Amino acid sequence: MGGSLLMALREMHPGVRLAAWARREEALAELQNRGLADFVSTDARQVAEAAEMAVLCVPVDRLGEVARAMAPAMDARKVVTDVGSVKQPVVGDLEKIFAGHRNFVGSHPMCGSEEAGLTAARADLYQGALCVVTPTADTSDETLSRVESLWESVGGRPRRMSPPEHDRAAALASHVPHVVAAALVELVARGGGAAPELCATGFRDTTRVASGHPGLWAAILESNRQEVTAALRQLADNLQHLGGLLESGQMTGVEKFLSEARQHREKFLNHP
Amino acid sequence: MGGSLLMALREMHPGVRLAAWARREEALAELQNRGLADFVSTDARQVAEAAEMAVLCVPVDRLGEVARAMAPAMDARKVVTDVGSVKQPVVGDLEKIFAGHRNFVGSHPMCGSEEAGLTAARADLYQGALCVVTPTADTSDETLSRVESLWESVGGRPRRMSPPEHDRAAALASHVPHVVAAALVELVARGGGAAPELCATGFRDTTRVASGHPGLWAAILESNRQEVTAALRQLADNLQHLGGLLESGQMTGVEKFLSEARQHREKFLNHP
Repeated sequence: MGGSLLMALREMHPGVRLAAWARREEALAELQNRGLADFVSTDARQVAEAAEMAVLCVPVDRLGEVARAMAPAMDARKVVTDVGSVKQPVVGDLEKIFAGHRNFVGSHPMCGSEEAGLTAARADLYQGALCVVTPTADTSDETLSRVESLWESVGGRPRRMSPPEHDRAAALASHVPHVVAAALVELVARGGGAAPELCATGFRDTTRVASGHPGLWAAILESNRQEVTAALRQLADNLQHLGGLLESGQMTGVEKFLSEARQHREKFLNHP
Repeated sequence: MGGSLLMALREMHPGVRLAAWARREEALAELQNRGLADFVSTDARQVAEAAEMAVLCVPVDRLGEVARAMAPAMDARKVVTDVGSVKQPVVGDLEKIFAGHRNFVGSHPMCGSEEAGLTAARADLYQGALCVVTPTADTSDETLSRVESLWESVGGRPRRMSPPEHDRAAALASHVPHVVAAALVELVARGGGAAPELCATGFRDTTRVASGHPGLWAAILESNRQEVTAALRQLADNLQHLGGLLESGQMTGVEKFLSEARQHREKFLNHP
């Protein structure tokens, strides 16, 4: 996410000065070699001092740590956002850390892939992507407007939601599908027989997200535990119900379910 | 599947004479216009008379009907296979219909997409694809060898399995993932809120197969009802178990599950 953002800003706004923080020196060296950052440091505070706006692109379970390191260098003229996949706990923590300035607002751009690192980064990652921003009563209008402009400036489509509204929606549209992709792989793994050999193009797509980073995803699921658990239970019930229809030969019900799913899918994936 | 097979044979074996049957005259006219068939008819018996080898590419619930229409024109010198996604009931029915000649063997090439019709057909569809063939005690060696050669001749990799072995594996690797893709779409549809807006690239891949033809898939699920029902129940139990781990904060268990799934996925999709 971070590498793609630097690439997009460099390409679309060549005049903007870019400063980058990373944990590893090698990652920063590569950013400089590729001309993607004018200033780099492994010290988050130094980078924050050099910046007018900060975008935290780190796993959700490390956001607090990086935010705390930056906090002393942030003041009311500077704006902060993050790109974490869960918003309610993140926004709660980060609003406390940047308290007083009303200059933090959470974001979640709906893009990215199961690959990580600079090799997977692309300048057009944010092009056309829905970029959720999650203001609260603590967010100043200026903060919100500057962060929305940032996403627009790299081709994204900002959309305001409350943190709980985002987390519930993300559980259904992203977090539960992730768990299910892993569960489908493990169903094949544990089922044995010839099933692994029969994993073809359909299986490749259905389970693609299961190649995401396990630690990163465990942290996302933990942060959105309540919504994910409720949605997983709902899905398990739905699958039991479908199994029942199938077992008792109620094929009209099964076909209706598949047919509605096809229609809904086209609708969901074709909204503007 | 049928259109792609004609394209592959035409391209890789231009000397072979191709005869095609379809229900609709328009489909046959298009095949002729594109030079993909030398003889066409909506009468399955006439096409069977013109052929030395027949490949039935019709939905599993219509295989019997087409096979019965062809049967009078088939004798021991001619070989028949099908490409149905379920094998035990299909092989049982078709062996009876072509009884006496031992000239039928079931096939299931592991390729294709959720799109149907000649516009989705591609000459390289079978290239590198695992092509399951399901011989029984009733299959003659010559039948088996001719059908395996057919799949090899269009780039496929033949693999022998018993019909029950195939159906169990297909339930785990293909049929259950299909039901689950539909269930994930419906979870979003029924969950409401902002979830439909958050359906992005991950959701697009995870649910791609849910855009398959509902009637065709209901027939596949019905034909493999027992295996699919058992595997759906197993998956629902696994999801309940994962929900429990997550709810009680046993994140080491969740991360281990995700990690094993990632490793298994790479292994399954990279077998030769």
